[in-house]
Parts: sequence; structure tokens; C-alpha cells
Amino acid sequence: MYQLGIVKRNIVRADAAAVKKLSAFGSATVHEAMGRVGLMKPYMRPIYTGAHLCGTAVTVLLQPGDNWMMHVAAEQLHPGDVVVAACTADNTDGFFGDLLATSFQARGALGLVIDGGCRDIKDLTAMGFPVWSKAISAKGTIKATLGSVNVRVVCAGAEVNPGDVIVADDDGVAVVPAAMAMQVADAAAAREANEAAKRAKFASGVLGLDLYDMRPALEKAGLKYID
Amino acid sequence: MYQLGIVKRNIVRADAAAVKKLSAFGSATVHEAMGRVGLMKPYMRPIYTGAHLCGTAVTVLLQPGDNWMMHVAAEQLHPGDVVVAACTADNTDGFFGDLLATSFQARGALGLVIDGGCRDIKDLTAMGFPVWSKAISAKGTIKATLGSVNVRVVCAGAEVNPGDVIVADDDGVAVVPAAMAMQVADAAAAREANEAAKRAKFASGVLGLDLYDMRPALEKAGLKYID
Amino acid sequence: MYQLGIVKRNIVRADAAAVKKLSAFGSATVHEAMGRVGLMKPYMRPIYTGAHLCGTAVTVLLQPGDNWMMHVAAEQLHPGDVVVAACTADNTDGFFGDLLATSFQARGALGLVIDGGCRDIKDLTAMGFPVWSKAISAKGTIKATLGSVNVRVVCAGAEVNPGDVIVADDDGVAVVPAAMAMQVADAAAAREANEAAKRAKFASGVLGLDLYDMRPALEKAGLKYID
Amino acid sequence: MYQLGIVKRNIVRADAAAVKKLSAFGSATVHEAMGRVGLMKPYMRPIYTGAHLCGTAVTVLLQPGDNWMMHVAAEQLHPGDVVVAACTADNTDGFFGDLLATSFQARGALGLVIDGGCRDIKDLTAMGFPVWSKAISAKGTIKATLGSVNVRVVCAGAEVNPGDVIVADDDGVAVVPAAMAMQVADAAAAREANEAAKRAKFASGVLGLDLYDMRPALEKAGLKYID
Amino acid sequence: MYQLGIVKRNIVRADAAAVKKLSAFGSATVHEAMGRVGLMKPYMRPIYTGAHLCGTAVTVLLQPGDNWMMHVAAEQLHPGDVVVAACTADNTDGFFGDLLATSFQARGALGLVIDGGCRDIKDLTAMGFPVWSKAISAKGTIKATLGSVNVRVVCAGAEVNPGDVIVADDDGVAVVPAAMAMQVADAAAAREANEAAKRAKFASGVLGLDLYDMRPALEKAGLKYID
Amino acid sequence: MYQLGIVKRNIVRADAAAVKKLSAFGSATVHEAMGRVGLMKPYMRPIYTGAHLCGTAVTVLLQPGDNWMMHVAAEQLHPGDVVVAACTADNTDGFFGDLLATSFQARGALGLVIDGGCRDIKDLTAMGFPVWSKAISAKGTIKATLGSVNVRVVCAGAEVNPGDVIVADDDGVAVVPAAMAMQVADAAAAREANEAAKRAKFASGVLGLDLYDMRPALEKAGLKYID
Repeated sequence: MYQLGIVKRNIVRADAAAVKKLSAFGSATVHEAMGRVGLMKPYMRPIYTGAHLCGTAVTVLLQPGDNWMMHVAAEQLHPGDVVVAACTADNTDGFFGDLLATSFQARGALGLVIDGGCRDIKDLTAMGFPVWSKAISAKGTIKATLGSVNVRVVCAGAEVNPGDVIVADDDGVAVVPAAMAMQVADAAAAREANEAAKRAKFASGVLGLDLYDMRPALEKAGLKYID
Repeated sequence: MYQLGIVKRNIVRADAAAVKKLSAFGSATVHEAMGRVGLMKPYMRPIYTGAHLCGTAVTVLLQPGDNWMMHVAAEQLHPGDVVVAACTADNTDGFFGDLLATSFQARGALGLVIDGGCRDIKDLTAMGFPVWSKAISAKGTIKATLGSVNVRVVCAGAEVNPGDVIVADDDGVAVVPAAMAMQVADAAAAREANEAAKRAKFASGVLGLDLYDMRPALEKAGLKYID
Repeated sequence: MYQLGIVKRNIVRADAAAVKKLSAFGSATVHEAMGRVGLMKPYMRPIYTGAHLCGTAVTVLLQPGDNWMMHVAAEQLHPGDVVVAACTADNTDGFFGDLLATSFQARGALGLVIDGGCRDIKDLTAMGFPVWSKAISAKGTIKATLGSVNVRVVCAGAEVNPGDVIVADDDGVAVVPAAMAMQVADAAAAREANEAAKRAKFASGVLGLDLYDMRPALEKAGLKYID
Repeated sequence: MYQLGIVKRNIVRADAAAVKKLSAFGSATVHEAMGRVGLMKPYMRPIYTGAHLCGTAVTVLLQPGDNWMMHVAAEQLHPGDVVVAACTADNTDGFFGDLLATSFQARGALGLVIDGGCRDIKDLTAMGFPVWSKAISAKGTIKATLGSVNVRVVCAGAEVNPGDVIVADDDGVAVVPAAMAMQVADAAAAREANEAAKRAKFASGVLGLDLYDMRPALEKAGLKYID
Repeated sequence: MYQLGIVKRNIVRADAAAVKKLSAFGSATVHEAMGRVGLMKPYMRPIYTGAHLCGTAVTVLLQPGDNWMMHVAAEQLHPGDVVVAACTADNTDGFFGDLLATSFQARGALGLVIDGGCRDIKDLTAMGFPVWSKAISAKGTIKATLGSVNVRVVCAGAEVNPGDVIVADDDGVAVVPAAMAMQVADAAAAREANEAAKRAKFASGVLGLDLYDMRPALEKAGLKYID
Repeated sequence: MYQLGIVKRNIVRADAAAVKKLSAFGSATVHEAMGRVGLMKPYMRPIYTGAHLCGTAVTVLLQPGDNWMMHVAAEQLHPGDVVVAACTADNTDGFFGDLLATSFQARGALGLVIDGGCRDIKDLTAMGFPVWSKAISAKGTIKATLGSVNVRVVCAGAEVNPGDVIVADDDGVAVVPAAMAMQVADAAAAREANEAAKRAKFASGVLGLDLYDMRPALEKAGLKYID
């Protein structure tokens, strides 16, 4: 359950070496390395193409149409952090724009993941401050109601704890629990190595049917070839 | 209520000086300058990134799957106008493409805002004729049923009167009532000036908490910091 | 009705000359040339801007969260084919990524149209392998349940038979029945020729009202001009 | 454009005789009598089946997640009024429940039309206080930000002015401008009388093809019968 | 591909005995009996609870906002038919109401399945004329553009050929190809018989784990029980 | 992060006395008593009106189109439990029907909350086995891939831990963390007592403006009354 009116100052961020190792991989590889879990819903899209981010989560719980807690969160940011903002209700208002981005960037934050709306797209793109959001909206917000900072949140269907690793790119947003960061990084590396070999085979014309030895299983499942 | 079968020829366009002044600002600033109202819903998206338009509205009321009134509207266009097209029903058909764009552009129109679908994206992009639409769809339309031109319409949740100022960019579409255009332009200018100073402070590391003196209000609201 | 567990090997592809002729046109022109039918729903979007494809359909019927049949389909691909993948349930998982694209490309396939999710966007863009999809999602899939290859499918609201011609671009995806390919190509050519002349007239300031002689019909329908 | 922070006390309600006459008709008939305009979007649904309401609009403009203005509106209600609540952003929170309904009912209001969420469905049904809403949601709201009462609003895509007539039933919500109420009531009555005769003919087996003499028009349009 | 402007008069309806046998089963059983295919999308909902229909399809292809073809279809109806209406574009207008229902019912039709909107819900419920639709909307339609009757259509994601069997109930809408009707009816009967026995076992406390002997497969798949 | 392939047998259910006390309240009251948090998204709707349930959660994590884990969950059910089923992807298939309901009911379960589809609506209604779901769909599922039972899940945007209290009614679904059950029940009781007094005042014509002493705050916020 969400806790409101709370700011947790001391959070345990994922191991820096693990974060660094994870930063070599995309969201798809990382999610596969966790056993196909840990993804936010696909309605979360980057505001510009080609962004890729890997950092530790500082979480924010917003109220609809209110971005007060964003300013509270700014103070809790360390270099390498990613702000992950959830909202207590579905809301597409533009909670975030170039001023807050300037503040977050000054604190060393790498980007924002927000289950809500974002604005000042042109400026954010020029600044190179990536945002993954549910919507783009010019609509402004107020500063009137408390939410929380650094509590566990559900963002776009995924649970995020402060300190977790966020890997986001054009394919979506993956969340790696802090305690599993190195283990997932290792699994991702293994997977990637394995994929390079496969890619070469596929390029040479080998079929997945043979590369993965699928024909017996397909036959057993009853697949029929007709002419 | 919508009026059907009407074309209003003489409309009062917003003051040209106000339109010019407003053209310096984005949709977010303009909407803030109006007190956070006057935006279309965020499902309205530009067909290409980076477009920015400010002009006076010529409104069109379409019937679903029918773009007849677009041709009627063309004749009413003055240089600097923006066509704002609403529809009597939710419909994503491609009401607009490169031929109509050529005609609108020849009349001096700056772009189109349509609560429906648009097609010929590639050509429109090459022509530099921006469109904000609900959908992109190759589906063609017929020319069989009357709508209206230059009546008050509701487009993507916003009321638009002929002659109102339309400010559209990557963040969305703002509508400024003609009678308020200069007042809003002034407020936007004041806001922008104010933002430049804030941006510098944020960049230097000052927090919004201190810049806006939020700490007392947060404490009064009951915010608790824990370690 | 869908048939499951079937792979049809010998399909009749549309006439190569017709496919070549159709490749000169966009989805909007082709759909108009068919009498305004044969389009997929507009939620199908290209993963990158500017892609344009014309080829013969190899169809795949997928089960939700399962891309097994994609590998079965790979073996049935001929140069110039386009894979058209439908799913037995609404599902946005990432059924397709760079490995399968490498395999499809090695077989000569031109691209993919999928009523589901796609991932590895960055890689696919770099490879120049276009995909039109309902969603972008990093979520991986399993290989456990039979679907079919080269049966008739409904993809994004459009019926597609193996061998049909697929024309896809920024505006959407059109499906031309194989038997009608040349007839549609001819009609598209006629339409395009006709449009070039119109475009010039529109550019010179002629109105559609006059070019299409709409004024009498509008008057008869009761359109009223007011001042 | 929306005005915020305003309560208009003296509004001109539609003529009582016209409202009474309109109350005999459903939303479909009324909308047809206006020339097929004036409907809210079909996502507006009644919280229970069989409700039918006809009254004069008191409008409310809400902020997302905030129902403060509902209490301000209560004071402006006259017997026979219908509250029409719009919101400055898409929001499904439960702005309205049994306590407010008790208050509105005590003032003589007939029901609520809200482009947002509603809760206490069971109680409202037992009270016989009908609500047409975009969503049902238990989520509560705060009382912190000003909206307005009795300003022109856009609710579910339809413009509503204070004093307009609202006709709502299982089919949806129609809005009749106050100044047109009697004219629309007369047109609705004429239409209804006409429909009764048609219904009897249809029941006896007469086809619409013949009743409306459609065969020549269909033939002219090119309809082909094949065996 | 859709054919426009065509009415096919002589269609082959599914065998009457098969239709009668199928009428004993719900949409879920029928869809399972076909191997889990043949369902329309779940956005298709009945306008009232408890309706159950089994009949032969007369198909209609509508244009958005136009119900002209409904009247053409009426003439082609035989007792026991179900009208299945598709549309060339997404549209929620109220294509169908009590007058057309009176006409259809007079011809012996059992109900309507429409990938669009429906109105006069109260009257249709009172008449006992069931409709499965995508939306309920009071919005009226015009009669201006040709579609077709008794051509193959895609309705809510499912292919329907004239004469196919439609089984619709609270769970959704299943389509049985005419040629497979008896075979599917037999499979449904077998399945139903089998389910009765299972139901008794489940009621007595037997677990599916044991009834279906799932434990070995779960263990093999790696399921771990922890305390 | 989700754990796959796990069944936790010994879970700590919320205190029985607290559950009993909570069962007197609806989801809106409970959510308010928690400080306006803990609700699932409003797309979760009961399959029949008037259902009300309060019990302890047994959680299930499903894979798209696969209900295998439902059978595994059945064995873990105690009397008074409510099954809460999440899915690793958005999916509306009919994961649950009357056979599983018979099994769950035989184990003493009170109902199901599922972020997916449900079928056999008529039978479930007749059985009095309530289900809150995202969709109703006749589409069947397979039994092929492991999920988990009694791990923490995110269901319709809310975090649910095994043993938490689920309160569901016509307004939606509230989740009370097991450790807070009695505290929330007490707060709910206090709130309810308070509401009874308010209801009487509202019924007598007292306005919320006065009952809650809102006039000074509204004036301070700048509300203007005009005539």
C-alpha cells in the first residue's frame, strides 16, 4: 500500500558496479535475464528516439494534477539516479518540463520515468534529458497535496523500490531489484554473448527451426505441413 | 450546439499584433498564461516533430468519413489561418492529405488541427505543412453530407471559435480566445521572462524547495522526513 | 475461421509484375484504387518513419505470448515476401526482434506486419528492416503452442490471404488480394496520374469547389453562406 | 475558454414548459430533432439501467482529483436542475457519492452528468439518483483547488451552457440549448408521431426499402443484386 | 477484401439441424469445440444480460455513420437469421434502433451483432431483440453511401461469411463456418457431457491438479513449493 | 519483481477479527480509511451488480492465455479466501469459468479478482460466485507455462501481498495490507459513524459549504460570485 506524506532520505542504491555492468544492455535483454519479468507496460514511451538510460531509482508518488513532490524529490537525487514517478490516479497532465529537468540534471539525475504526462519536449530533447512517459501534454499542474518520495510505488504496472536499477530504451522500461542487480547483469552478459553467435548463424541462412532443434517438438505438438 | 449547413464568411480574427506576439511562445506557456485552461486533449499529436504554429482559426465541422467541408473551408482561408476541424462523431479516417494541403497552403494557411485522421504524412512533412491529429490513417473519405464552416466547434475537448488563436507545438494545442489574445500574449511574455531567471538558478543547483520557498508549506501539510 | 496447427507450403503469390507495379504507390493510393477498402486499422504504426514496402504475404497465426510460429514461417519465406502476423488474442508482447529479423532478412523477406508487439527497435532500424506493429514492447515470448502458417488470417481488422500484396508506408497498411493485383495497380497508376494534374491546379490557387464542380451539389444539399 | 474561480448565481434556465415537453422524449429523439447534433460522447454511461432524466443544467468545472466545486454548486441548485460536471483533465476519480447526492437531492436536483468518476453506486441506485459518468471508481477526491460553477463547459465532447436542457437515458446524454428548447421539443414531438406510424408498418412486414422509397436511389448509386 | 455495392441474394445457410443442435450451447463451449478459435473480440457486449442467440448470418457491410445497407439487408432476412454488421471504419454511431428492430423481427430475424453503436436500448430490451455491439450511442446515421449485403466481412476481428452460424451470449460471440456446423455441434455436445462429470467432481472437492493429473507436468516444468 | 515457478504454502492471513470488521464496509470507505490509497484501477468491474466481498488474498501470477496456475492456486485456498490473479502481460482471455469456480467454491473461496478476462458469466451469477475482472471473454486458455502462487503481485495497478484483505463491491476493489487490517477497520468504522450524521444533515438541506465550513477557504482561494 502506498504511504503518503513520507520522504525517505537514506535509501540503499544498487551496487555501482552492477549498475555499470547493466548499462551495457537494453531493456529487452535485461528483462529476459530476469526470467521475463520486471517490465513496465508498453504504453510507456520515450519522448525522443534513441535514448538509453541505466540508473538507480528515486521514487516519487504524485497526486493527480499535482507535481509538488517532484521538487521534494529533487533534493534526494544523487548523480546516476533516475526519477520514477507514479501517480495515485490515471492522469496525463504535464507534471514535468524543462525547469524541473534543469534542476534534476544539476543534481546529476539521468532521466525520468513517469506514469503520467510530460511537456517541453523540444527543450528536453535539446538538453538530452530523456523521459519515458504515458503521455505528452502541455497541461500544467499545481503544488497542493502531499505524496511521497522514496516509498515503494507501482509505476505503469511494475513495482519499483527506491534504489532499484532502471534500464530504459526504445523498447521500454525494465526494473531490476537492487539486491539482484549483479546477478541479472551476469545473466544479461551471458545472454548477449549467446545472441551474437546466433545472429551470425541466422544471417548465414540457418533457420531457427534447426538452430533451436524445434522440428521434433513441432511434430509432436501435431503441426501438419500441407501443399 | 453545433449548427450544420452553415458557412460564415466574415469572421473576426484575433488582432494581428497579438498573434505575432503569441507566436513566440509554446503551447505550455500560453496555456499557463491563461490560468491553465484552453488545451486540447493530449491525444492530439503532430505528424512530425519540431513543428510550431501560431495562427487564427478557421473552423470546420465534419461528418464521419466525409471531408466535403474541407473544400468549402479552403475558400474561407486567409494568410495566417489555421484550419481547426472537429467531427460530429469519433472517427479516424484520413480526412486530409497532400492535395488539400496544397490547396490550403496556396491560400496561405499555416497548418491543420483535426480531431480525426490524416494521411500522406510523407508528403505533408516534405511540404512543411504541419498537422496535429488524433490518428494517421490512409483511409479515404467521401463528399456527401453537409457540416459547417466557421461555427463554434468542440475539437479534442476544447471549444474553438472562428478567429481564435491556435498555438500548437510538440507539447500539444492551445486555444486562445480572440478577445483575450493580447492579454494572454503579455502574460506569456511575463511568464517566459520569469522562467529564464529560474532556469539559471535551477542550473546552478538551487532547489525548487528553496526557490519557491516550499519548505514551510510542506511541513504544515505534514510531510515527514525519515532516515 | 482460423485453422491451427497447419503450415501451407505452396502458396500462390501475386503476379510479380503486378507487385512491381504496385510498389510505386503508397497505401492511401492503393486503398483508393480498390474502392476505399482493404486497409488495416490505423493503430498499426511503423517502428520508424519513412519506411515503404510492397511484397507478397506469408501469413502467421500466433498464440498470445508465443512466437513459435515465427520460426516455422521463416522457412516458408521467399525473396520479396512480407510476413503478416495475426494473433488469436489481443496481445502486445514483443513477438519479434533482431534475431528473427536477421533470419527473415537472410531469406529475402522485406518486412513484417504484426498485430502485436515488436522489440529491438534500434537494431531493426539500423538493419533497415521495417515493422508495422500495434505496440513496441520489450516483453519476450515463449515457444509452446501451435498456431499456423499460410492460412487466411484477420490482421488488424483486415483479411489477409497468403500471397496477397501488402503495401505499407507511413500512412498505414493496405492489402491487395492476389487475384486483383494487376487491376489495382492499373487503377492506382490512373489515379496517380490524375492527382499530379490536380496538385498543380491546387498549387496555383484553384479551389476544390471549382476543380470538382462542387458548388451546385452543395447548394442543392442546402449549404447556406452567412456574413 | 474556461473561466476558473467563478460562480455565476443568476442563470437563465430554459423555459419550464419546454423542459416539460422535452421530458417526454429520449436522448436519441431529441438529438435527431436538433438535426443530429448535441450529444455527449458514448463513453458516458448511466450507473443503472432504465434511468431517464430531463432538466436544466447547472454546470461545474472541476480540477482533477478535486470535488470542491461540487459543494459550491449545491448552493446554486434549483428544483429540476441537473448538475453537469466537466474536468480540466481526463480523470476517473470518484468525485461524487451518496453524501453529495443527498445534498443535491435535498435541493431538488434530478441527477448528475459527470465527465469523470462516480462512487457509492449501490446507494445512488437505492436513492434513485441517476448519474451518467465516464467511470465508476471508489477513489476519493480532495477539496483544494478552485474550478467554477455556471460557466460554459465542454463535457464529454459537448458544449453545455448553464440553463441548457439535459436529456439523458440509456442511450446517452443530449444537450439542448436553452433558447432552442421549445423548438426542439416541437420537432421531437413531430418526429415521434411520425415514428409510431412507421413502427406499425415495419411490424406488418413492410420494408424500409419501400417505406422510404429507397430502391431508385440505391439503383442510381450502383447497387448490384447477384444470385 | 471487401466488395462494395453488392447484395448477394442466394446464400447457403448452415444446415438447420446443426443450427438447432448448436443452439443448446454457449459461445465459450462452441469456441472450445472449434479448437479455441472463431470468437469476436471481447469489446462486443450484449445490450442486456441473459440474451442467448443461435442463428445463421446475413452479413452487412456499413460505411461510417451510414445505415443505408441495414434496410437493404432487411429484405434478405429469413426466419432464424442473425444480422452481422461490420463497418469500413471504426465508428460508434447508433446505426440501429427500434424501428429497424421491428422490421428485422417482422422478417423473423433473431438479433443483431454489430461492430458499431446501437440505440433505443430500452425499447430493444422490451422487445426482446438482442444486440451485441461495440457501443451504445444515441447518435443517428444517414443513408447516403453503398456498402454491401451478404459478402464476407470482418466483424470485431472475426471473419464471417453469409450463412455461418452465430452463437452469442453473455460471454461473447462465436462464429461457426457453415460447412463445419454439425461437426462443431457434435464436438460441443461431447465437451458439455464431459464437463458435467467434471463439475460434480470439482464440487466434491477434487482438485484440478488431480482430476487432470497435472502434478507431474508441473514438477517437470520446475514448480517449487516453499513454506 | 515477480517470481516465477513458486508456490508459497504458508502465508500469513490478516487477522480474522479484522477481516470480519472490515466486511461491514465498502471499497470506498475502506480506501478513504487508508488515507485514499490502496485501490485497483477502475477498469476492474464486477460481472454482476450488487456483489460485495471481503476476504484474504491468495495471489496468482498468470502467463497470457494460460490458466494453469489457477489450478495450483485452488489447492492453497482456505475458507474465506479471495483469489487475486495478475498476469505478466495485458490479456483479456477467459482464464476463469464455472468449473474453476466450482472448485474454488468447494474450497471455501469467496470470489475472484482478476486482471484479465472471465467467462461463464451466467453460471457464475447463478452460483453467486462474484468476479471482478478487466474483461468478459469466451476465449479459452491453455495450461503450459509456469507462473506463481502466493507471491507479491501487481493487480490492476495495486500491489497485493498474500494474506492482504480484499474488499470489493460495485465501486471497485480495495486492498488492505494484512498488518494494517484492524487499524483500517477501526478508521473505517469511525468514518462511517461520522458519515451517518452528515447524511442526515445533508438530507435536511444543510449545505456542504456550511457543514464543512468551506466558505472562508473558498474566499481566500479567490472564488468570485457574479450575478
